[in-house]
Amino acid sequence: MSAPFGQRLAAAVAARESNIVLGLDPDPMRLWPGALAAAGDGPPEQRVARTVLAHCHLVIDAVAPAVVAVKPQVACFERLGAQGRTVLGAVCDHARERGLLVIADAKRGDIDVSARAYAEAFLGRTATPYGPIEGLGADALTANAYMGADTVEALLAVARPEGRGLFVLVRTSNPGAADLEDLPTGPDGVPVWARAAELVAGLGGADSLSDVGAVVGATAPEHVSRLRELMPRTPFLLPGVGAQGGRVE
Amino acid sequence: MSAPFGQRLAAAVAARESNIVLGLDPDPMRLWPGALAAAGDGPPEQRVARTVLAHCHLVIDAVAPAVVAVKPQVACFERLGAQGRTVLGAVCDHARERGLLVIADAKRGDIDVSARAYAEAFLGRTATPYGPIEGLGADALTANAYMGADTVEALLAVARPEGRGLFVLVRTSNPGAADLEDLPTGPDGVPVWARAAELVAGLGGADSLSDVGAVVGATAPEHVSRLRELMPRTPFLLPGVGAQGGRVE
Repeated sequence: MSAPFGQRLAAAVAARESNIVLGLDPDPMRLWPGALAAAGDGPPEQRVARTVLAHCHLVIDAVAPAVVAVKPQVACFERLGAQGRTVLGAVCDHARERGLLVIADAKRGDIDVSARAYAEAFLGRTATPYGPIEGLGADALTANAYMGADTVEALLAVARPEGRGLFVLVRTSNPGAADLEDLPTGPDGVPVWARAAELVAGLGGADSLSDVGAVVGATAPEHVSRLRELMPRTPFLLPGVGAQGGRVE
Repeated sequence: MSAPFGQRLAAAVAARESNIVLGLDPDPMRLWPGALAAAGDGPPEQRVARTVLAHCHLVIDAVAPAVVAVKPQVACFERLGAQGRTVLGAVCDHARERGLLVIADAKRGDIDVSARAYAEAFLGRTATPYGPIEGLGADALTANAYMGADTVEALLAVARPEGRGLFVLVRTSNPGAADLEDLPTGPDGVPVWARAAELVAGLGGADSLSDVGAVVGATAPEHVSRLRELMPRTPFLLPGVGAQGGRVE
């Protein structure tokens, strides 16, 4: 059994003297010019796969000394077709070789067996009659708790024994956050995002830094202090600090 | 430009005289025995990929005459590793050859560019310097609207011109639905799920059957009539009717 994710995260932040997370959101039309030489020949899928991989390696190599983790946006790899998962796996391997944690930004959420399958895909492994299929090996996965605590617990049932963690969406920074996240609930008008924060706090382990983190939009700073009150032991993932950047607090 | 998804769905339901959706949630440890002969040799990933594909083909062939669509649970394919997307693509191709619509059950939700990337992956295609990478070609995608209408609109911006649709989570049937979905909001105590329903209804196109559907837990029948009032032109996807089954109403 691995050390709990909260401990691993705290140790990594201390060792690297950084709480910065490098976002990786590769757009095939906007890669670093140095990556394009890797295209080679073959069908478009293979050429794109090579350039996206080269781009991510270049970015990681350039930034690794200053950061504690990478956060690949899984959507950007899924759209690469059959090659996408292979490229994502290679990017994660490269980040690990540079001593970085990997936060798979997939925002998954589903009921029991489906949530378990996602956790196996990203954080664990899948049992088969022919032996286990290893998952992506990410250190943490972003998750969506709209469907409730049991759906997050199903992810956590796989993650926690592996020393892996979650970052659950609480209050995001897009304009649409007003539609559901900000709705006032109950007699006191507590917003939905504060209820989500309570849910996150309730799922944390016994460590001083929880293995269930929160995604908190950095462009809503007035909420951050309130969120810290609600989630005193929860690591915060703040996307949007800088271009494709983020930070763990 | 393809016909709108609502029209395509209505036509398919009429032509096939069925509103039943076949759920595909393959577990490598619980496949139909007839699929295991396809395992062949090689590393576990390849053997599992072959058996999962054979299983899904067998299930589709057995049930196709009675259903209008298949709903592959994407988590079950993601956990197959690098082979997962290839297997999922082949399953979707097979369903289409049997005349079925494909609803990718991925419950995606993310901000603007990331949502767009998911829509490209499942419903559209991705521009690259070497030519477009075709997506999965699903007819519809399930989505999570916790982050608000703009995140669903970003999916729809890709889906609608392609004649593809969405099914947005509104009220699910798991116990955890009480945690956030059921919270009473505002002075009238309107539950969050009803706000989500209004959001869904507001995104629908001009057709008599909208291209933005709703996922409604079939085990909460007391909610269905209220949801129909809130979303008069919205197709409902009701998971949980029968084992791995569902229905479009």
